[in-house]
Amino acid sequence: MDYRRTHKGGELREKQVGEEVTLSGWVYKRRDHGQLIFVDLRDRFGITQLIFDPDCSSEAYQIGFQARSEWVIAVRGIVTLRERGMENPKLATGKIEVRVQECMLLSRAKTPPFSLSRDHCDAHEEIRLRYRYLDMRRGPLIENFIMRHQVMKVARAFFDVHGFIELTTPLLGKSTPEGARDYLVPSRIYPAHFYALPQSPQLFKQLCMVGGVDRYFQIAPCFRDEDLRANRQPEFMQIDLEMSFAYPEDIKQLINQFLTTLFKECIGYDLSSPIREIGYQECVERYGTDRPDLRFDLLLHRLDEWIDRSQATLFREARSEGGVIKGVCVKGGSRFSRRELESYRDSLLPFGVCRFGWIKREEEGFVSGVTKYFTQEELEWLAEKMEMRAGDLLFLGGAAEPLVNHGFDHLRRQLAKDLGLIDPRDYACVWVTDFPLFELSQEKEKLQSVHHPFTHPHPQDLVRLSTNPLSVRSLSYDLVINGCEVGGGSQRIHDQMLQKEIFSLLKLTDEEISDQFGFFLHALQYGTPPHLGIAFGLDRLIMLLLGTEQIRDVIPFPKTQKASDLMMQAPAPVSAEQLAGLKIVAQEAENLWI
Amino acid sequence: MDYRRTHKGGELREKQVGEEVTLSGWVYKRRDHGQLIFVDLRDRFGITQLIFDPDCSSEAYQIGFQARSEWVIAVRGIVTLRERGMENPKLATGKIEVRVQECMLLSRAKTPPFSLSRDHCDAHEEIRLRYRYLDMRRGPLIENFIMRHQVMKVARAFFDVHGFIELTTPLLGKSTPEGARDYLVPSRIYPAHFYALPQSPQLFKQLCMVGGVDRYFQIAPCFRDEDLRANRQPEFMQIDLEMSFAYPEDIKQLINQFLTTLFKECIGYDLSSPIREIGYQECVERYGTDRPDLRFDLLLHRLDEWIDRSQATLFREARSEGGVIKGVCVKGGSRFSRRELESYRDSLLPFGVCRFGWIKREEEGFVSGVTKYFTQEELEWLAEKMEMRAGDLLFLGGAAEPLVNHGFDHLRRQLAKDLGLIDPRDYACVWVTDFPLFELSQEKEKLQSVHHPFTHPHPQDLVRLSTNPLSVRSLSYDLVINGCEVGGGSQRIHDQMLQKEIFSLLKLTDEEISDQFGFFLHALQYGTPPHLGIAFGLDRLIMLLLGTEQIRDVIPFPKTQKASDLMMQAPAPVSAEQLAGLKIVAQEAENLWI
Repeated sequence: MDYRRTHKGGELREKQVGEEVTLSGWVYKRRDHGQLIFVDLRDRFGITQLIFDPDCSSEAYQIGFQARSEWVIAVRGIVTLRERGMENPKLATGKIEVRVQECMLLSRAKTPPFSLSRDHCDAHEEIRLRYRYLDMRRGPLIENFIMRHQVMKVARAFFDVHGFIELTTPLLGKSTPEGARDYLVPSRIYPAHFYALPQSPQLFKQLCMVGGVDRYFQIAPCFRDEDLRANRQPEFMQIDLEMSFAYPEDIKQLINQFLTTLFKECIGYDLSSPIREIGYQECVERYGTDRPDLRFDLLLHRLDEWIDRSQATLFREARSEGGVIKGVCVKGGSRFSRRELESYRDSLLPFGVCRFGWIKREEEGFVSGVTKYFTQEELEWLAEKMEMRAGDLLFLGGAAEPLVNHGFDHLRRQLAKDLGLIDPRDYACVWVTDFPLFELSQEKEKLQSVHHPFTHPHPQDLVRLSTNPLSVRSLSYDLVINGCEVGGGSQRIHDQMLQKEIFSLLKLTDEEISDQFGFFLHALQYGTPPHLGIAFGLDRLIMLLLGTEQIRDVIPFPKTQKASDLMMQAPAPVSAEQLAGLKIVAQEAENLWI
Repeated sequence: MDYRRTHKGGELREKQVGEEVTLSGWVYKRRDHGQLIFVDLRDRFGITQLIFDPDCSSEAYQIGFQARSEWVIAVRGIVTLRERGMENPKLATGKIEVRVQECMLLSRAKTPPFSLSRDHCDAHEEIRLRYRYLDMRRGPLIENFIMRHQVMKVARAFFDVHGFIELTTPLLGKSTPEGARDYLVPSRIYPAHFYALPQSPQLFKQLCMVGGVDRYFQIAPCFRDEDLRANRQPEFMQIDLEMSFAYPEDIKQLINQFLTTLFKECIGYDLSSPIREIGYQECVERYGTDRPDLRFDLLLHRLDEWIDRSQATLFREARSEGGVIKGVCVKGGSRFSRRELESYRDSLLPFGVCRFGWIKREEEGFVSGVTKYFTQEELEWLAEKMEMRAGDLLFLGGAAEPLVNHGFDHLRRQLAKDLGLIDPRDYACVWVTDFPLFELSQEKEKLQSVHHPFTHPHPQDLVRLSTNPLSVRSLSYDLVINGCEVGGGSQRIHDQMLQKEIFSLLKLTDEEISDQFGFFLHALQYGTPPHLGIAFGLDRLIMLLLGTEQIRDVIPFPKTQKASDLMMQAPAPVSAEQLAGLKIVAQEAENLWI
């Protein structure tokens, strides 16, 4: 017989009763009722019940008799109605079954190391990664990959319609170790020379603009050799685009339209439009972070002035040390117990927010450990400013500004979660703009780019570039959805002299500039149009659409947090000849996989 | 003013006369007529003539006055009809010009190192690669990239409609040095461990089939660290697919439909359908190659029997040494001069075809240096067999079979070129099937796979697998267009025992099998469906559609034959810290770029 299916699993219904069909797939469940054997046959489209009856075909029955979980078979048979009472309403094909006339055994199977039940899998993630192909067969992962397919498809179609050329840039490039570490690839032809895998196609896409491509687009593989945090992968993909002769407002409009299309086509969700926009300063002020979750309010308020004007000594110290005081009003929060309040306080300690207080407004007045520090008038004023009504709660915190912000960002998210303020089906997008161009490096020794060194300074701030670079804003725009940064972009520098100046401010030596970016500076001199672009983390976008928090769920063959592939056992030692051919020597080490 | 264009270059026509427009782009040509300055403004869409008139705007005129080639400007102005006699019929916008009212200088430019004329570029390819962004600006390259975009778009749409999931597979994989050399990537976390960049996603796509993906598709980056021949690149892309529960005829039919769609949508060409199919043996017999160009006939014929039966001693030697005799009849070839015939003979010498002869059939009889060896009857018989008419020519050659085949393949192509038998707008596709499963390695010591070790043996030949492996055919199918192999695929082995046997026949040790393919053999045991697939060289397909013979013309940022990127100067030395971080030592060498 022929193993090609006439119907997919999950496709047969009552209207096919009487038809002869061929199905092929995996034995999911098998029940031996003595005279009859029932098999649930599964493929990625669904499940169909087969009946093996020796009266119908003894050869087929023999196969059905021997069959075990995950054997691959093809069957030819007749669609019949299930006996009354035997229907399975949970199954799309639950009213029918197929009486097998012929069966072909295509592959036997060892017993899987974990249950391939669709609904739950209790195996440890390491085992699931090692047997990725079995985990896929369960179903949900493949559905995630179909969403991935869908996102790429919608993105490509959208940018194609808008005149963007999909242009593939090289993966064997040059090391420009700005930002993260590069993955290196030794060259065999030129000993001691290395390619680097791209952290992003940034320079290539800008060179496309120099080359007159006008609008470039790509879903590009990117690589970063970082110590992996959760939800990072050493290789990932970004939806990457760049356009010439446009302004930031054009790209924001375009992306607004793109996201509206994407959310509609992928999950039928109507994104509210236009996407809100907030400047970096205001954003950090109000949300304590540049990645705010706008699905809930809980806005932060600066209370420095109120503290300074009050009699209270409580937060004075924080103020006198140059710190700030922020407060957040929690509607209905006065019902929190002392224990709950203490737990919120404790959760702020790791962030360095050591000055902390809370004030409840009850019907009968203010209640708090700190009320005694304030006059009734001061409390009234505060309540009005913070729009506190009876039943509400105010959290106060004081410390150095970044600490308060970080701590209160955490507090906001925790409160929203605890109070059920977040509708998981909701999406809140926001553009965060006007980031600072530079920040101080961790060692506070030198400037580093907040985005990357090709970001254009804000024209209004150009005059301060050399005198007060930390005060210079950039023409940048990050896209944040539900508190997660999914995209970021900027107007780029198209003037060679300005680009050189930025490199100098970043304390790159002439030699470093020339070695790493010489070719790029050279190119900028030959007539570069103003250009700008953006890049989206493909994986994060898919995670958002699927509502999953695990990046490994959206990548077909992901790596662990230690950047290893448990299924194929990579990285791995290689032969001495291979290393000799590359003229490199590797320090001896034990084989990780033995 | 605002630099956003209202119209593209090449878009304005008579009907826009009187309208105010904004254009932006590069100064292509500039002519100073004293009182007026004419500028041809270019973007990737076309050219528009601008007039700078000081009476219209002296500020704009000043910019026009200073402007040089490749400066980037934006202009606002009024579309006007050109004066009679000044129209340029070669230009789509040749009837109009734009009188500039305002001009914005966006970038100055150094004088380019070569002319950016669209139609010809006399710069050496090295210079053009170094200034790839300037070569792009000329126009034809970008049009090639648009074709690339189009091919990817049509491919993705086609396979999407046919139920294939676009699934991205890892680029940091494991070294399985079967076939070409791998590019290696040292792991920082695990010293002495390496990733390898994939030569193809072969194992991943097969694992997707094990995982129940059913139909997989990807346009995948692939890497091979080979000594590059012309038209190879160290990184290239392939259109890659795999499906389960299907037979070779299904994939051939699908691909037939795909290519018909592709050629129609990309270049409006109607591919003749169904695609012809020829077995490997017959193919080599008739065309001397497994990559035949079917745009012309010039079939090869085995003349062994005729020689053996004849009185002639001429080719006896070749026969007695185990060689074969082949002939090809050239219609109208009797007009070749002795010098031309000698030149064909000479062109065969490098291939080792040392026995060579020709016979012309003129109206008056046979003419040749070799006719004397044959009886008139033998010549008549030959003419009938070869369908030689008066005016035709027969080439004869004898040597070991592979040498004759290789030489006569070359001869066929040369003759077709010389005789103008090839219509360059024509496409002839053919499936070459039933390749041998194995061939002897160059050292003739051991078997190697003709395709790859995952190719399924022909079921009819399985019985000879251990006794006479070289006689076993595979279930393979290569797609050849115009003599160029653009795709290849096969039914895969889905039985773990058979896969193991193939590895053994390839003389892989148990340790090698386990190190390199252990994970894969392991996976095959858990219920693997029958599956098969194919991969197309994306770049070659685009080259065919564009009619170009240079692979670098279809890749945005290509590498040289020594695998270097002349524009960004890669590969390059890296810092000592980077190598120390990876715990590898590279042999010292001089910097290639200094």
